[in-house]
Amino acid sequence: MPPDHTLTMPSYPAYSTKSGQELVRFGDMLQVTKVGETNKPRASNISKRRKAAQDDGGAEYMAKRAELIRVAAGLFKKNGFDATTFNDIAIHTGLDRATLYYYFGSKQEIFQDAVRGALNGNLKGMQAIMSDDSRGPLEKLRALVEMFMKSYRDNYPYLFVYLQQDLNTIVDQKSEWGKEVSGEIHNIEEAFKSLIRQGIASGALRGDIPVSLATNSIFGMLNWTHRWYDPDSRNSPEQVADAFCKIFIDGMAAH
Amino acid sequence: MPPDHTLTMPSYPAYSTKSGQELVRFGDMLQVTKVGETNKPRASNISKRRKAAQDDGGAEYMAKRAELIRVAAGLFKKNGFDATTFNDIAIHTGLDRATLYYYFGSKQEIFQDAVRGALNGNLKGMQAIMSDDSRGPLEKLRALVEMFMKSYRDNYPYLFVYLQQDLNTIVDQKSEWGKEVSGEIHNIEEAFKSLIRQGIASGALRGDIPVSLATNSIFGMLNWTHRWYDPDSRNSPEQVADAFCKIFIDGMAAH
Repeated sequence: MPPDHTLTMPSYPAYSTKSGQELVRFGDMLQVTKVGETNKPRASNISKRRKAAQDDGGAEYMAKRAELIRVAAGLFKKNGFDATTFNDIAIHTGLDRATLYYYFGSKQEIFQDAVRGALNGNLKGMQAIMSDDSRGPLEKLRALVEMFMKSYRDNYPYLFVYLQQDLNTIVDQKSEWGKEVSGEIHNIEEAFKSLIRQGIASGALRGDIPVSLATNSIFGMLNWTHRWYDPDSRNSPEQVADAFCKIFIDGMAAH
Repeated sequence: MPPDHTLTMPSYPAYSTKSGQELVRFGDMLQVTKVGETNKPRASNISKRRKAAQDDGGAEYMAKRAELIRVAAGLFKKNGFDATTFNDIAIHTGLDRATLYYYFGSKQEIFQDAVRGALNGNLKGMQAIMSDDSRGPLEKLRALVEMFMKSYRDNYPYLFVYLQQDLNTIVDQKSEWGKEVSGEIHNIEEAFKSLIRQGIASGALRGDIPVSLATNSIFGMLNWTHRWYDPDSRNSPEQVADAFCKIFIDGMAAH
């Protein structure tokens, strides 16, 4: 089985990096703490209560968390991650800072939780497509592009928040989550590269364009959507994906 | 003469929006002031001296400004515009805050000056290509893509700083500069759309892909380069442009 059929799926234990984020609220104000970065734990009453509530996973608490994530993601999308403070999120969710802190240790934790589910879904979708042996490389390419566009719509604005942010500037690359995200991006790149290589090897795709540049071309089409695509716009994800695939696959076709 | 041949060139008076930025240093700290936004002028000694020095335009003063812009742009590229403070720039340029303030009223002013020259150059280059009647629409498309890629390299990292930032989040759309930049983006989009429409009308390009989606495809390829292209990388701007044009123009070719 070629490597692209065996994409590793990182596990995502729910809220795994909460511990040790007690100091993040100060880092949040100073804008020095990166997503996933671990600070020295400092026990505080409210963070103990948060940990207990998250471990308990009560339906009401988790529903409130999901609602807060939605509001925060809207602010990240509109104003940018850096320009959005923990305090802004508290104001827009109608909570005081301490109450918001009962749900999340930092805005970094909110960001992480906002994108985690969507990224996890993408990985599962990609794995399913890549391991489907009834499809050839070009059909898999087409299916991947469509899956990503649908995911951008279904998870709006979470994946656009993720795409608009250069993760290098906010994710601690050495943290558990930093490694997970880097691994995921790497897996996606490798899947596309592998399919393009298979297409070239089969004679269906042209060989005069470096595979890395071809991959960056289709990534550019897909990822730049965060600047212009709106789920309410006249074009469905399927129509956008169809346009991208026509241009990319016909443009890459061997003559 | 079709509209795309008569692109308007906004004038860029040197440092036109300095006046009234005396309060921006506080806005800078609070991150509430957008680029180009005008505050109520407050006369201060240092801002008067800055204005006098800029009006005077002495070679040494202007050279120091250019050097400071270079350092600041590197920080914007690396850490993001929002996460970079006026103070960070002072520290990295080895100046104290007051001395940096003698050169620039705010980080917004530095950002604006960093991208202004490059944007101005792009507009001139685009105008020259669009008005060259010896070229057909596909040749003009190819020339535009190559011009932009070369400009990204030649003006590195200024245009990548500009591309990585969703300008809506930091530029006051009603300011003089906000209008200039919006106008410029609009002109570039219209140039591409017009060439694609001409290609379809001539029968060279396919008509089954909406022009707006085709335009967003090539913009995505070009603009996503800010995440991966490095002037020192193995691919020259010409090679990247060639790959993009092969994919885009062959992908858009009528069958």
